[in-house]
Amino acid sequence: MKAAIIHAALDLRVSETGEQDPGPGEVEVRIRAGGICGSDLHYYQHGGFGTIRVREPIIPGHEIAGTVSRVGPGVTAVAVGDAVAVNPSRPCNHCRFCLAGQPRHCLDMRFMGSAMRMPHVQGGFRERLVCSEAQAIKLPPGLSIQHAAFAEPLAVCLHGATQAGPLLGSRVLVTGTGPIGALSILVARQAGAREIVATDLADAPLAIARGLGADHTVNMRADPTGLDRFHADKGYFDVVFEASGSGAALAAAIPAVRPGAVIVQLGIGGEVAIPLNVLVAKEIQLRGSFRFDQEFAWAVEMLGRGAFDVAPLLTEIVPLDEAVRAFELAGDRSRAMKVQLAI
Amino acid sequence: MKAAIIHAALDLRVSETGEQDPGPGEVEVRIRAGGICGSDLHYYQHGGFGTIRVREPIIPGHEIAGTVSRVGPGVTAVAVGDAVAVNPSRPCNHCRFCLAGQPRHCLDMRFMGSAMRMPHVQGGFRERLVCSEAQAIKLPPGLSIQHAAFAEPLAVCLHGATQAGPLLGSRVLVTGTGPIGALSILVARQAGAREIVATDLADAPLAIARGLGADHTVNMRADPTGLDRFHADKGYFDVVFEASGSGAALAAAIPAVRPGAVIVQLGIGGEVAIPLNVLVAKEIQLRGSFRFDQEFAWAVEMLGRGAFDVAPLLTEIVPLDEAVRAFELAGDRSRAMKVQLAI
Amino acid sequence: MKAAIIHAALDLRVSETGEQDPGPGEVEVRIRAGGICGSDLHYYQHGGFGTIRVREPIIPGHEIAGTVSRVGPGVTAVAVGDAVAVNPSRPCNHCRFCLAGQPRHCLDMRFMGSAMRMPHVQGGFRERLVCSEAQAIKLPPGLSIQHAAFAEPLAVCLHGATQAGPLLGSRVLVTGTGPIGALSILVARQAGAREIVATDLADAPLAIARGLGADHTVNMRADPTGLDRFHADKGYFDVVFEASGSGAALAAAIPAVRPGAVIVQLGIGGEVAIPLNVLVAKEIQLRGSFRFDQEFAWAVEMLGRGAFDVAPLLTEIVPLDEAVRAFELAGDRSRAMKVQLAI
Amino acid sequence: MKAAIIHAALDLRVSETGEQDPGPGEVEVRIRAGGICGSDLHYYQHGGFGTIRVREPIIPGHEIAGTVSRVGPGVTAVAVGDAVAVNPSRPCNHCRFCLAGQPRHCLDMRFMGSAMRMPHVQGGFRERLVCSEAQAIKLPPGLSIQHAAFAEPLAVCLHGATQAGPLLGSRVLVTGTGPIGALSILVARQAGAREIVATDLADAPLAIARGLGADHTVNMRADPTGLDRFHADKGYFDVVFEASGSGAALAAAIPAVRPGAVIVQLGIGGEVAIPLNVLVAKEIQLRGSFRFDQEFAWAVEMLGRGAFDVAPLLTEIVPLDEAVRAFELAGDRSRAMKVQLAI
Repeated sequence: MKAAIIHAALDLRVSETGEQDPGPGEVEVRIRAGGICGSDLHYYQHGGFGTIRVREPIIPGHEIAGTVSRVGPGVTAVAVGDAVAVNPSRPCNHCRFCLAGQPRHCLDMRFMGSAMRMPHVQGGFRERLVCSEAQAIKLPPGLSIQHAAFAEPLAVCLHGATQAGPLLGSRVLVTGTGPIGALSILVARQAGAREIVATDLADAPLAIARGLGADHTVNMRADPTGLDRFHADKGYFDVVFEASGSGAALAAAIPAVRPGAVIVQLGIGGEVAIPLNVLVAKEIQLRGSFRFDQEFAWAVEMLGRGAFDVAPLLTEIVPLDEAVRAFELAGDRSRAMKVQLAI
Repeated sequence: MKAAIIHAALDLRVSETGEQDPGPGEVEVRIRAGGICGSDLHYYQHGGFGTIRVREPIIPGHEIAGTVSRVGPGVTAVAVGDAVAVNPSRPCNHCRFCLAGQPRHCLDMRFMGSAMRMPHVQGGFRERLVCSEAQAIKLPPGLSIQHAAFAEPLAVCLHGATQAGPLLGSRVLVTGTGPIGALSILVARQAGAREIVATDLADAPLAIARGLGADHTVNMRADPTGLDRFHADKGYFDVVFEASGSGAALAAAIPAVRPGAVIVQLGIGGEVAIPLNVLVAKEIQLRGSFRFDQEFAWAVEMLGRGAFDVAPLLTEIVPLDEAVRAFELAGDRSRAMKVQLAI
Repeated sequence: MKAAIIHAALDLRVSETGEQDPGPGEVEVRIRAGGICGSDLHYYQHGGFGTIRVREPIIPGHEIAGTVSRVGPGVTAVAVGDAVAVNPSRPCNHCRFCLAGQPRHCLDMRFMGSAMRMPHVQGGFRERLVCSEAQAIKLPPGLSIQHAAFAEPLAVCLHGATQAGPLLGSRVLVTGTGPIGALSILVARQAGAREIVATDLADAPLAIARGLGADHTVNMRADPTGLDRFHADKGYFDVVFEASGSGAALAAAIPAVRPGAVIVQLGIGGEVAIPLNVLVAKEIQLRGSFRFDQEFAWAVEMLGRGAFDVAPLLTEIVPLDEAVRAFELAGDRSRAMKVQLAI
Repeated sequence: MKAAIIHAALDLRVSETGEQDPGPGEVEVRIRAGGICGSDLHYYQHGGFGTIRVREPIIPGHEIAGTVSRVGPGVTAVAVGDAVAVNPSRPCNHCRFCLAGQPRHCLDMRFMGSAMRMPHVQGGFRERLVCSEAQAIKLPPGLSIQHAAFAEPLAVCLHGATQAGPLLGSRVLVTGTGPIGALSILVARQAGAREIVATDLADAPLAIARGLGADHTVNMRADPTGLDRFHADKGYFDVVFEASGSGAALAAAIPAVRPGAVIVQLGIGGEVAIPLNVLVAKEIQLRGSFRFDQEFAWAVEMLGRGAFDVAPLLTEIVPLDEAVRAFELAGDRSRAMKVQLAI
């Protein structure tokens, strides 16, 4: 079967790869749609990020959906032919984090398309893959496979909202309106936010953000003082979803939040400078948010009931054979929000 | 009457200052004991900190206790002769923060001995001061005025513990064992922590920390890898009280905490660098903690019942006339934990 | 001016009542719409409820909206002609509950149309009333006065949701689909509930509940075992909004909730029996929810942005002169959800 | 080996029972001390409680400690000769509750000495038993086996405190000062409660309660209005630990708590009447608390460091052969707090 394989930075090839048979409790999924994520792009553009490097050929992709093509012994939850979204997380289910209801922190996690461990865990940009039965979440009637492939990034944002605490009645700032920021707008709206303001450095994603429900947007490059009107009386926003990973975005958010505000850090940056004195004086809570657990199933179910209209995020569907073009497009924020491979 | 007055950096003089009569609902307190705090030292040593500068002569001091010497009309809670601890916070009681149960964020706060506003709010290192009835908290029987003067820094630490959430059964790291770190050890112990580890760069305060209940201490200057044994399996501590304001202390704490840990930031630093990727991957919560509200009354009541033995922190009691010597001593961490003025 | 006045059980008359001038910081509102609430009905049908009895003539009504007709000295937030919803709560703003951010528990609350204190606090079913500036919340453009009169019961439900904690991704049971249960469905949907099931003893309100977003409804009179399928594996629902005040509804909910579930008690009943052993074994949390604070302003703002479609709840608008007919209609659950007086 | 076996109500015999070999990952413990708990007494006095009945001979006992006598293959955490406390909970470790960090709600729990399932799970009042390695918690140096046998009821109380939320600075009411109430006093004190009041119907346990740290006690039989002074201004206590399972105790607590108070229900009663209107108006939270999870390990560790002085609770140590006398004594509240069997 064919797969998109990254061999090194800027060396992505579509070529043949081996098959695998589903074992007991496992299923084989015929992948149909795969969204390109920021970490996939990092592997392609830079051969990794931080200390995580591509050390052997890796199939990227962890935002995937398809149909069950084979089932191993003992599988009961899904049957051949079922449309499924694939949860890329395969935790060990017996370490202390798994038993604490936090499999996202599993000490032996296998996360698809990740170069964190050796051998790398191969991802989903291929024709077929084998996963555990628990990873294949059956789609509700009426949910397209293309929209189901948004379940993974949506789960990230639902988990971010869970980290934030109750959002009902809150005033929310979203910094960075790439796919995670944009989906966070949908989630904040669905969770009862009273007002949503979004910032970015580019106009194109901000236009999409407004379409998704942002009440107001600020291009911080064109209008660097655009958040200043939220500084009065110790600040305005109750919650921030920081989705850029940029120290500048975080620095701009801090004077705009009210005392006691929660900043949920979704964007993965490196070292950034924080003004400790302001964090103390305003009792700001900066909370990291990492992947998701049960929120993947929520995402599939809530997509199925139409709670989130992800259509405006889907920029283009590109055939697997044109994966290089797809990755180049996905890397251009002026043209692309979310690019999917059709496999 | 006499007061200790800072005119500029390193210019502290004990001289005469004016009297004030208590108005309706106000009381005059004859100050007996006043602890020297880090912010007092900053005014003395550097003429301020950050953007807060001594712009006119200021009487420092906000860790104070004494006896009621006069009462204004309508005062019922205390009477002449009562021993009291003085809460240095005088909020407006009608802004949105006061009405939200958060007077510490009052938009018009008058905090004793603070150069934040002009004219400066004069502090407590003087013979008598006038405050509202609500600021004079009557001491329980048996609580000495010297120990009562610890109510203010203790309230800071009780508020830090409140920000941390439940501590029962927790493993706690305290970074920086000056007075705030040291009192945080007492509070963590009283709040049911299972294990307490403390770090500092000096041996003298660490010895006191052990006496206060720290199970283990690390001198990070002598033993920079002393926390490394807490790094395994994604980290160990549930809660950190960061009481140094140092970026190095925060950086050392991050790999030693478990996923989902809470770091309560008590130390007031400037810009410090944070590894956002680790904060995200471990879902660390960095929470600022600022002053206190109801915890001041808790502190007085709990000191009165013997819940906290603050005696080991009291380095020396120095007469007001020797205020310069007291400030010099307070600034020497190898010799001093908490220096008090006897007034 | 005219007012609807309850003199005793079943003795409601529309008659003349005195006028009042707005004092400093007060406004006069020309009332246009007033919804009839369950407590209004209790005064009319039974002369009170529990220990709260009509002891002198009382104007009922606390779900009201209108236009500002006069303003007293110093009023800045609203002007003559502004359309406003009237918050019926007038707390003292200086008791310990007001200063703790919980004015709903004010020790000296004046709540419109309540017979709790003597003299009774007169309510809103009259042509004009005087309230504090803070009680008159200006309507956003496009919000009708009739829909604005839903702000009060909606605020009750928003507060109930606040008591519940985060609802994102939750499975919710609503027991009792009168106006409070029905609005709780709207709120739970807006707060991100994954699934909503509603119960009642009558078909008419359940039909409205389905229209508002309940995924499934059960008429517990016709189908007493209709919740049994949620009993397996220790129960199903994460959150219950109990809006009936009936012990039978609470008893039916308990086996249907999962361990650790939260039951928010909105319905005001008398003594009801609770199976303590099940509450313990399943660690159920039964939480009372009383009125609202900041949620009134949320309600107006969120109604203004179209977050809640209350139109299906509005059964009929009846002229003030026909108040007796309006109260009779409001008391018939087979015909009425919410009846409003046009004043 | 010998065991105490309940055949029916009031039919307890010490007789021979079979041995078992430790399998892989299992250990055999030579039991030395076993505390008699309320549920043991119910089996003995009434042949069960509620729907849980003794349907075949059962060895009671789940508050036990001893020394490891044999280890099965693969055991690494303990060795022969180690003194251990035995956690009576053996969850399945793979149901949804186990994987959610809530093994106490395990769908296939085996809890020692429980008649809930058939065949009954045999308990610890015998010379030797086999349990999983994870159930045998090694004692810290200096902790006696007799005090270690308090780990189980102490874990129940630590879990109750966890359910309560932060206790630092709180005013606590404990209703019912049997062993669970008495240990809750120790826990509340250790968790930073500011004030503790305890009630019971008997003087003997109240005397012990005062010795454990209760500031004030009320014999509700002798002084039925003894809590009335806490009714003013909507109530006083922040947290209640209800350890009697009595409706009268719960009814007496409700007017004495402040709005928003948490009542942790530890006592397992039957149907009790609750005044829903007061629960609503005061927004009381009634929270069930069931057994414990990680708190068992906390209990052992904190007993080891001397955080809890359980000595005053230990009424008498009775040899296994006199088990009938021990049970009779344990059932007499005027004479006994906690009776242990020496095995």
